[in-house]
Amino acid sequence: MADPETNAAPAPSQEIIDELKSIVGDGGWIDDVSMMEPYLTEPRGHFVGKTPLILRPDNVENLAAAVKYCFETGTLIVPQGGNTGLCGGAIPHDTSNEIIISLSRLNSVRSIDPANNTITVEAGCILADIQAAADEEARLFPLSLAAEGSCQIGGNLSTNAGGTGVLRYGNARDLVLGLEVVLGDGRIWNGLRALRKDNTGYDLKQIFIGAEGTLGIITAAVLKLFPKPAEIKTAMAAVPNIENAVKLLSHFQSATADHLTAFELMRCDALDLVEEFVPGMVRPFKERHEWIILIDLSATTAEQGEPITAMMESTLHGAMESGLIVDAVVAASGAQAQAMWDIRENIPEAARLAASGIRHDVSVPITALDKFIAEAEAVVFGAIPGTRILAFGHLGDGNIHYNLIRPKNMESKEFLGFTEQINAAIHELVDRLGGSISAEHGLGQLKREEVRRFKSDVEMEMMETLKAAFDPKGILNPGKVL
Amino acid sequence: MADPETNAAPAPSQEIIDELKSIVGDGGWIDDVSMMEPYLTEPRGHFVGKTPLILRPDNVENLAAAVKYCFETGTLIVPQGGNTGLCGGAIPHDTSNEIIISLSRLNSVRSIDPANNTITVEAGCILADIQAAADEEARLFPLSLAAEGSCQIGGNLSTNAGGTGVLRYGNARDLVLGLEVVLGDGRIWNGLRALRKDNTGYDLKQIFIGAEGTLGIITAAVLKLFPKPAEIKTAMAAVPNIENAVKLLSHFQSATADHLTAFELMRCDALDLVEEFVPGMVRPFKERHEWIILIDLSATTAEQGEPITAMMESTLHGAMESGLIVDAVVAASGAQAQAMWDIRENIPEAARLAASGIRHDVSVPITALDKFIAEAEAVVFGAIPGTRILAFGHLGDGNIHYNLIRPKNMESKEFLGFTEQINAAIHELVDRLGGSISAEHGLGQLKREEVRRFKSDVEMEMMETLKAAFDPKGILNPGKVL
Repeated sequence: MADPETNAAPAPSQEIIDELKSIVGDGGWIDDVSMMEPYLTEPRGHFVGKTPLILRPDNVENLAAAVKYCFETGTLIVPQGGNTGLCGGAIPHDTSNEIIISLSRLNSVRSIDPANNTITVEAGCILADIQAAADEEARLFPLSLAAEGSCQIGGNLSTNAGGTGVLRYGNARDLVLGLEVVLGDGRIWNGLRALRKDNTGYDLKQIFIGAEGTLGIITAAVLKLFPKPAEIKTAMAAVPNIENAVKLLSHFQSATADHLTAFELMRCDALDLVEEFVPGMVRPFKERHEWIILIDLSATTAEQGEPITAMMESTLHGAMESGLIVDAVVAASGAQAQAMWDIRENIPEAARLAASGIRHDVSVPITALDKFIAEAEAVVFGAIPGTRILAFGHLGDGNIHYNLIRPKNMESKEFLGFTEQINAAIHELVDRLGGSISAEHGLGQLKREEVRRFKSDVEMEMMETLKAAFDPKGILNPGKVL
Repeated sequence: MADPETNAAPAPSQEIIDELKSIVGDGGWIDDVSMMEPYLTEPRGHFVGKTPLILRPDNVENLAAAVKYCFETGTLIVPQGGNTGLCGGAIPHDTSNEIIISLSRLNSVRSIDPANNTITVEAGCILADIQAAADEEARLFPLSLAAEGSCQIGGNLSTNAGGTGVLRYGNARDLVLGLEVVLGDGRIWNGLRALRKDNTGYDLKQIFIGAEGTLGIITAAVLKLFPKPAEIKTAMAAVPNIENAVKLLSHFQSATADHLTAFELMRCDALDLVEEFVPGMVRPFKERHEWIILIDLSATTAEQGEPITAMMESTLHGAMESGLIVDAVVAASGAQAQAMWDIRENIPEAARLAASGIRHDVSVPITALDKFIAEAEAVVFGAIPGTRILAFGHLGDGNIHYNLIRPKNMESKEFLGFTEQINAAIHELVDRLGGSISAEHGLGQLKREEVRRFKSDVEMEMMETLKAAFDPKGILNPGKVL
């Protein structure tokens, strides 16, 4: 559905389309509708768009020339990476007046400097390829998330991606030292610095990270690398409630400090669903505990391997003795550790296979997590008793994917009829607890309107000021974020 | 000296001054010239300004009302924290047409949440007071720098301060979760979120961090806390050259990972100067080695205390065996550790007592440090043989304070005559190596013009776009940064 305020430009003329094709050259564009489907559909099918033209430039100069021409002609642009986002940020509207610029062919690792712990990559690099390039130099690029096999780093940076490594290494934003960006008028900004410290004026890269392609198009980045862990020890612990889960986090942070590299939460319903839909799951405990925590401790040297095993065991032992946890199991092999992670990583896939759900990607201060869980349950069970609550996520960051699956005896359609009511109640609860209604997924099209209920007028005006300053003609990803 | 382009407003009328006084109320202003000196002089005396009025509001609403009135009347504002900056960013010009707004009375710790690892403070809080408040709750606020006893957090954030904790904990920017800011037109933005993850639109706080008060006035912040180290092991090592120092860093990062919390460099001339000017220095080595490294390993639990001592000894032992270092000494007591840190921390004071110097606060990629040191020495000794090179700083961040003291047989005046020539050559070298001419001190008045030689037109235009968007009347800290 077109938004008349943000997406009112006419469809580009044949002349404009021909000129854009000639700018990027042979092999650099798609205008055959039968080839476009992968670029036009959000992974879960919630957003489907239309476009007259997909550009796939293979160098930054051509991309910049195309943007410059779009600026001159008022042609609307949707920048797109691996198209794995869940909020419709990379999908054009269905109005056929926005062209797509795909970064897929800008996919070189430009350089890697292990001693400086930096890698310089183009926006279209697949995240897993960057991880592998770092690994070859005995370094770790710690950004890690379910879509890493197909998502692109440009999209990761444009959405300030989170994932399982945030607790120790931070969000995508924290992993960036420098950027190259094509601005809304086609100028190229080379901010590819590989420095830990640089206070020569405004830190302009921050503007583009997390802006979902609405302020500029990220074309390359200098990223931080870290020493590669020599050994990782994995365990699962069962806690009786969220209050104890939060205390367990604090207990681990004190006892293991920076060795703690993952602290993931799963509700029992999530394990049930994985067991039901993904073959081969191994239950970590015989009993069906309500809350399970997945914990990684990492050691950067082989010599630390023994100590972290002892550290994991003694920390869990202490937690058991003080009643924080009711059960625990430490992986005795790499295969056991992988089986534990498989459960966690198969939750989104199991949810996708199970049914349409009602989803939330929220965060609250860690000290408000127990209140959130208790009050959200009251909301959900008050509205639809028997709902399966697939709460899971990054407890260490206060970030919960609070997803709901229909009760077995309710039709999908009836269940989804509650979406607006439940979304509103959960988001109001999150807001009341000082939280965020989009912790790591961004706004895209999905939450663009919803967020206005929770942001102050001043904040919305500041965002509009920034948009007007860096995209004065409003051609960059119109109708997203704002 | 007034800059006609950026500081051209007339001096505020008596009517304006009276109205501003009445807005902040009794005790909230200074107009007696004899009381103004501490607000008008940069610590080393390099910048001295004039003002008709200093406002010291004790609440954010009054501060905002004053800014709103300044916006309406076109009155220029210099925001000021603890006035410890070295680039003149907090000092008005000598044109008497800028008022100062001091944050000193906005100095409450609003709240502290140890379980969420956050503290909410007002801009005028002294850094050391924040460290102490965290310490009382067994937490660490890791920002640490020489001026911590008098600098204010608002200034630290406005200059994206660095210091000795950056290697492990990041720059000031990395320690911020939320901000409250008074905008250039007097609106108050409440962005005081205490969340690890929040992707609901543009990350507006980033705009104001490091902007030196030119885009808004930071009035409060939510800061990250960390587990408090239970034990810190300190050592000094002597390396024959910078190449080995960089390799030693890499060796320590692999062997000790996140236990490594400080890795500071000092050249022998710096030790000599401290010995000469600050009584009581204990030389760590009998020999006069050219380069000394100061190393801290931290443990967050008492149980780790023994292991980190062993870790320090074995890592140094390995470095000795492979020829990376030529000597090392591990502090056997807290007093010995303090004596080692005293050397490092007394360098700026010794330099101040010694003589006027030629100073640089630069960073380069860590892999370019050896080239920088070698080529900079050639520049310096080529121009002025016998110069004492006080290179010291945060090797782990690639950040060197490359300060020069006159040869003993040369008059200050003659030596300082080389300032422009040496600055230009060092800055060109830094630029050629992909570095920054202001790693942690900012631009202020000092480097505002110089930086234009090294930034692209596109980058300068982007900075101007941001300034025009958030300070359209140009009343916020005019003639600083831009």
